[in-house]
Amino acid sequence: MVRSIEVDYRFPPGIDPERQGKVIAIGQTAGTWDARFQHREEVMRSHLGEVINIQTDDQKYSIVTVAFPEANVENDIPSLLTMIFGKYSMAGSGKVIAVRLGENYGKRPKLGITGIRDRLAVPNRPLIMAIFKPALGLSAADHADILEQVAFAGLDLIKDDEILPDLPTAPTLERLKACRTVLDRVRSETGRNVLYAVNITGSAIALIEKARTLVKAGANALLLNVLTYGFSVLEAIATDPEINVPIFVHPAFAGSLCASPDHGLAYSVVLGTLMAHAGADAVLYPAHYGSLPFDPTEEAKIRDTLRSRNVFPVPSAGIHAGIIPQVLADYGNDVILNAGTGIMDHPDGPAAGVKTFTELIVNN
Amino acid sequence: MVRSIEVDYRFPPGIDPERQGKVIAIGQTAGTWDARFQHREEVMRSHLGEVINIQTDDQKYSIVTVAFPEANVENDIPSLLTMIFGKYSMAGSGKVIAVRLGENYGKRPKLGITGIRDRLAVPNRPLIMAIFKPALGLSAADHADILEQVAFAGLDLIKDDEILPDLPTAPTLERLKACRTVLDRVRSETGRNVLYAVNITGSAIALIEKARTLVKAGANALLLNVLTYGFSVLEAIATDPEINVPIFVHPAFAGSLCASPDHGLAYSVVLGTLMAHAGADAVLYPAHYGSLPFDPTEEAKIRDTLRSRNVFPVPSAGIHAGIIPQVLADYGNDVILNAGTGIMDHPDGPAAGVKTFTELIVNN
Repeated sequence: MVRSIEVDYRFPPGIDPERQGKVIAIGQTAGTWDARFQHREEVMRSHLGEVINIQTDDQKYSIVTVAFPEANVENDIPSLLTMIFGKYSMAGSGKVIAVRLGENYGKRPKLGITGIRDRLAVPNRPLIMAIFKPALGLSAADHADILEQVAFAGLDLIKDDEILPDLPTAPTLERLKACRTVLDRVRSETGRNVLYAVNITGSAIALIEKARTLVKAGANALLLNVLTYGFSVLEAIATDPEINVPIFVHPAFAGSLCASPDHGLAYSVVLGTLMAHAGADAVLYPAHYGSLPFDPTEEAKIRDTLRSRNVFPVPSAGIHAGIIPQVLADYGNDVILNAGTGIMDHPDGPAAGVKTFTELIVNN
Repeated sequence: MVRSIEVDYRFPPGIDPERQGKVIAIGQTAGTWDARFQHREEVMRSHLGEVINIQTDDQKYSIVTVAFPEANVENDIPSLLTMIFGKYSMAGSGKVIAVRLGENYGKRPKLGITGIRDRLAVPNRPLIMAIFKPALGLSAADHADILEQVAFAGLDLIKDDEILPDLPTAPTLERLKACRTVLDRVRSETGRNVLYAVNITGSAIALIEKARTLVKAGANALLLNVLTYGFSVLEAIATDPEINVPIFVHPAFAGSLCASPDHGLAYSVVLGTLMAHAGADAVLYPAHYGSLPFDPTEEAKIRDTLRSRNVFPVPSAGIHAGIIPQVLADYGNDVILNAGTGIMDHPDGPAAGVKTFTELIVNN
């Protein structure tokens, strides 16, 4: 029997791990059946999960490993989540702390680290990313103004703020068109490519159609809030032949799933494992240097899991010039450093912010 | 300034509610800006949120109400979630316990309570729903066999188990076709309509295309795991003119978002408010009678919120014949009683299970 999906569930002291393991292995798969289904016995048996390990950690928490047959799911993230933590997520305390998927499970990035480096012609050093700020209220012309300052100053990538949808004050397509003109000028005057990850929003069909329209109109990267729009949307875009640009994934809403100590899923599962198998090219997540309470061990797992599948890690929040030496020591080269206020709020303006970063990184 | 989205955030003792309220009202909207953006001052101001109330409950938890401008979002659930609990969900302890949306925010069900009752020609009494069991491993012919037993016995609705995707052992379209034949016979021999909610799965485009194909092939209801596939997918289906059948929403994965006391969102927000504004026709959720630890107050809120927008509440898990009098007293008539094992595991077979339920309910 092929069982290549292994999930570690962690339970607080006082919960019977053996019993819970069985509830999951059976209740989240074929369930029970009686004599009426004897003729299907073999097939049903092949769908059952199995408890393959139980251990206790030094905090007296139990960790139960359940192996699930890959044949129960559709080689994607939504059917995986429904199986491993669908109904069972409502059963009480218990957290998914690791998911081990086969190498061929799910998707790989179309571009990832190597593809993004190719498009920017920057083979080795860390890349520098900025965010359009303020998040809401800028016109398309304002976006182009800001982009002009930072792009000519040497920035590699820029992104919309994740909360900026398609608003009448700055419709997404107009924003892209105004910025595309700047990107073209940067290219013709300096020979450099700069990527702009445009936030894609809307109901699933409208969102996917918008992504295609934006790419046709010159978008060279996209940004998606996967956790509020859905993994099935990321998977659709990641495999769409018309969308041949890198997809940047934002972690917005991840805390709803991951911040609780005894419920939900670990950050390293959601922002590491799931994203790396869902088709993302680059994944943003909070750096532990920043204001968000993020565990360095979880963060390291995210980084390593993403890199193992050629997905660019993009630590964000709290990246400012003063900690660049530490950041470079912690991350090495295959990283996109996403500096929001670190660039935009530089006292001498965003261009000066970019120059400070590039000097520290390019001349490292 | 129009601000019709109000959100209540609950913080444990020791967290400064005033400060957190401001972080949310400003940080999750326009953010801060300086003199460079004076020309956009008025527009940016119009995007800011505002703390409109702070109170303390009897457990010394603070409840902070933030009002957000509707103009920041796209009248849908994903952009709403990104705004109210996107990046901020990663900021520490704090739970969204209520979201108040304008009546016209989002979508309404195409059919809902009244439409489902019309299609079944059952104007008043509670409806009875069963689930195909075992969940995995049945062939299309097995499904048809089971359906024949329960449908002729008087069942109103049946659904796939939520963990059953589109598998080679029972491809979704074959399952539907085998069952459609039975549904047609029931109709011609008894005059009754029975609805079968078919589970729709796949990446967003494939899923939506599959939904259309199934409806063309005679599906008269659909089942969607909204929380693993994405709200944007539900919204696309709910507004698709080709999909003129009720959409049943399953709560799988809801515990990841809702089970923690101090993180994530309340069950009543996710399974009540959000579903009622996302286009669902009927929403399943754990009944507090069952094995899942579900708070009766939260459950009552879900029921009432759904009904207020003509969405059918479908309490599930733990619905068995013995508690029907209690269930009828608690829920009244506008409810779909979803009995999985209560019907399928009846000692005299599923048909006897259905008859027990119908006698208790129809003759109530």
